[in-house]
Amino acid sequence: MNKVVENLRKITLICEKERNRNTNKLAVYIHGWLMENLEEEFVSALHNQELNHYTLHVERKNDYIYIVVTLLDEDKTYLIEEFLLSSTLNEIIIKSTNEKYKIVGRNIEDKSLSELTERFYQEDSKNTFQITFLSPTSFKSNGEYIMFPDLRFIFQSLMNRYSFVFEGNKKVDKDLLDELCDKTKIVSYRLNSSYYPVHQSYIPGYFGEIKIRCKGNKTLVNYLNMILEFGEFSGVGVKTAMGMGAILVKQV
Amino acid sequence: MNKVVENLRKITLICEKERNRNTNKLAVYIHGWLMENLEEEFVSALHNQELNHYTLHVERKNDYIYIVVTLLDEDKTYLIEEFLLSSTLNEIIIKSTNEKYKIVGRNIEDKSLSELTERFYQEDSKNTFQITFLSPTSFKSNGEYIMFPDLRFIFQSLMNRYSFVFEGNKKVDKDLLDELCDKTKIVSYRLNSSYYPVHQSYIPGYFGEIKIRCKGNKTLVNYLNMILEFGEFSGVGVKTAMGMGAILVKQV
Repeated sequence: MNKVVENLRKITLICEKERNRNTNKLAVYIHGWLMENLEEEFVSALHNQELNHYTLHVERKNDYIYIVVTLLDEDKTYLIEEFLLSSTLNEIIIKSTNEKYKIVGRNIEDKSLSELTERFYQEDSKNTFQITFLSPTSFKSNGEYIMFPDLRFIFQSLMNRYSFVFEGNKKVDKDLLDELCDKTKIVSYRLNSSYYPVHQSYIPGYFGEIKIRCKGNKTLVNYLNMILEFGEFSGVGVKTAMGMGAILVKQV
Repeated sequence: MNKVVENLRKITLICEKERNRNTNKLAVYIHGWLMENLEEEFVSALHNQELNHYTLHVERKNDYIYIVVTLLDEDKTYLIEEFLLSSTLNEIIIKSTNEKYKIVGRNIEDKSLSELTERFYQEDSKNTFQITFLSPTSFKSNGEYIMFPDLRFIFQSLMNRYSFVFEGNKKVDKDLLDELCDKTKIVSYRLNSSYYPVHQSYIPGYFGEIKIRCKGNKTLVNYLNMILEFGEFSGVGVKTAMGMGAILVKQV
């Protein structure tokens, strides 16, 4: 039997930058830096997972750089946590670009499984949500990347991850997914396409905001609420460990 | 036999505004003002067309308001031209909102059928185009408005109008449309959704930019070039006489 995950954790390193060079590959470099600093055996165990148990992305706000790492299974990611929270870790040095980031603060945000399931029994949840794609987001289907948001891909990705994290497999209830897609619509958006640089290639995707509305019953709305809330930790789509697919969700 | 249209004409009235009230319904009001100022019989003949032989939209630049009217068939629209270019027309008064716009300049741009067909025989045409949706753009399919750009709808609309203007019917070569759709892709975009107010309802649509690339042979690329160039006069999608569907095209 699979152990049930109890907590999701989001660790944010707030960093100052030495110089102001702007690279949209930063999350890829930070991911490389993180992997270099973990034990080899642990890294290969991480990589052998069917889906990542962690995500990483970078945000830029008011001259600071926020490196956001989420941990979806403490058993499988405890060394990431230990490393990021270690008091001796004061700076990040990216060897390949010779850049240095001073860590000036750390935030920790926890979300328990019970908090998520509370969402499912919520009485007064709204049916309209704003989803912000904080970092370039993309999905792959039939060998092609999907450049416009498609709710089926987004919901399926969230359901996959939810089931993988909390039940140990990627089983998706297809009827539930169909109902969710039937009853939910994008009502407005503001989006840019983007080409995210990973290794030698560029992944087409998008970032920005969409507003969605679910016309389903309360149970469906609450379920949507729950997986979207979960999505702030799991991310959606491809390359969520290398900077892509970070979302922020607001009931509106 | 249908008379062949020879020229497309774009008339721009450059206006100053009395006060700085911003309404996104301005093109709807201007359309109403224009129809009020034309002979009743002429207006009803205009409205009895299967597709409009004119378009109207509004742009705002540097404190000026540009009212852009295109005329796709001089025989059917000569009174619009006569009215807009008349030396006694110095201001536009919108009765319902009690607003006044002083006309401070006029531009006329002509495009002949032979200039368009030249495009078709161009030797060095590029295969990448930036399409700017200058005003909210929408298409209706199966009773629903389409909120994201879909090249099939865009191309079909252009082919429809091209054939309507130059051949007097809305015949579309389906094989050509299929080939155009197969070979052409949106490669990047920056788009916002919008709800355009027409009468008592709001039409969902979008504005912004897309970049498309055609991987077809030179003939196909040149054909695309020609209908896109035509599109700057014809507009695309619904309500092009009331402010929607104005496009600008650049080879990039």
